[in-house]
Amino acid sequence: MPRPANPLVRENLLNAGLNLFHAQGFNAVGVKEITDTAGVPKGSFYNYYSSKNAFAAAVLSRYWTGIVHAHGAVLSDASLPPAHRVIRFFEALTQDHAEQGFALGCLIGNLALELSAENDEAREELTSIMTRWSALVAACLTEARNEGEVAETPGADELASMVIEAWEGAAMRGRVDRSRVPYDRFLTVSLPRLIGTARAHV
Amino acid sequence: MPRPANPLVRENLLNAGLNLFHAQGFNAVGVKEITDTAGVPKGSFYNYYSSKNAFAAAVLSRYWTGIVHAHGAVLSDASLPPAHRVIRFFEALTQDHAEQGFALGCLIGNLALELSAENDEAREELTSIMTRWSALVAACLTEARNEGEVAETPGADELASMVIEAWEGAAMRGRVDRSRVPYDRFLTVSLPRLIGTARAHV
Repeated sequence: MPRPANPLVRENLLNAGLNLFHAQGFNAVGVKEITDTAGVPKGSFYNYYSSKNAFAAAVLSRYWTGIVHAHGAVLSDASLPPAHRVIRFFEALTQDHAEQGFALGCLIGNLALELSAENDEAREELTSIMTRWSALVAACLTEARNEGEVAETPGADELASMVIEAWEGAAMRGRVDRSRVPYDRFLTVSLPRLIGTARAHV
Repeated sequence: MPRPANPLVRENLLNAGLNLFHAQGFNAVGVKEITDTAGVPKGSFYNYYSSKNAFAAAVLSRYWTGIVHAHGAVLSDASLPPAHRVIRFFEALTQDHAEQGFALGCLIGNLALELSAENDEAREELTSIMTRWSALVAACLTEARNEGEVAETPGADELASMVIEAWEGAAMRGRVDRSRVPYDRFLTVSLPRLIGTARAHV
């Protein structure tokens, strides 16, 4: 790191990377395209990130943090029954995807399936995000279970993971078909069946 | 197409493309790497395929045909209750993924999330595969429904799509974690809950 880091440059790089990776994928986008979009010289990229791979890890972290900031609060909204909070959370994610015409899918899922074994830093970030995402949803499912809202088995972490995986599959199909249909059936059928609540979403 | 097509060359190209795209993705692999792996001159690629994008469509078709040939029969195996056939089908797919150490995921899902709007031929093939896959599983679920094995709603096509989407999400997480855990919870919990059968798999 030959020069002091400039937080604004870092911010511009992350925003550029997030938009470009989401729209085009990791391998289709070069460092020059990222720095051009961020409005910084190509050489400065390496003052901030040791590699495009390390940068992808930072972009994923930023994407996940954005989701938590925008929608995490609903999962602890005591005014709603816990199982409904989970449904509301995924409804909010669906709304985010709707704003992109269901054309881009989830950046986490996209990079999970594009990055290869060589992309170790980004892959470690993906594992970390999946673990944190499961824990966030599991906390809500544990509350729901304590209130008798959802089925007793399996463990809340397992159940949360299954819900997130079904969500990611719905987002995948939605991206293929450019359609909200897979999202809607996830919200109205898959999610209630998986968590074992008979209630329709409200 | 300046020269007569040689079926062996086409076969070698498809096999090379399937292995390379599955291991590395679409954008990380160039035409030269495909022709080198297939043992044919680079120029001959365009005697067979008008573009790498058209080639990806053919590779996807080959991948899907391989799945149907290897595992499709179990879905019409009258010696098994229909709901169990569906479970057996996905167990067979899981076994395929196990042979790759759960490191590669499903090529259909991988390309669904990597290809962008510009890859129109390959994306049309993805839509076609998802539709045929849903129909294949739906036929079995309709039988199961007629025998009272699974829940009445929603429609068999919708239900089949939800099952396939949950499977793709499990394969995604399995690829991130290099683990069979997401596959196992899909087979033992998600799939029975989604199709509404209480029976454990046999």
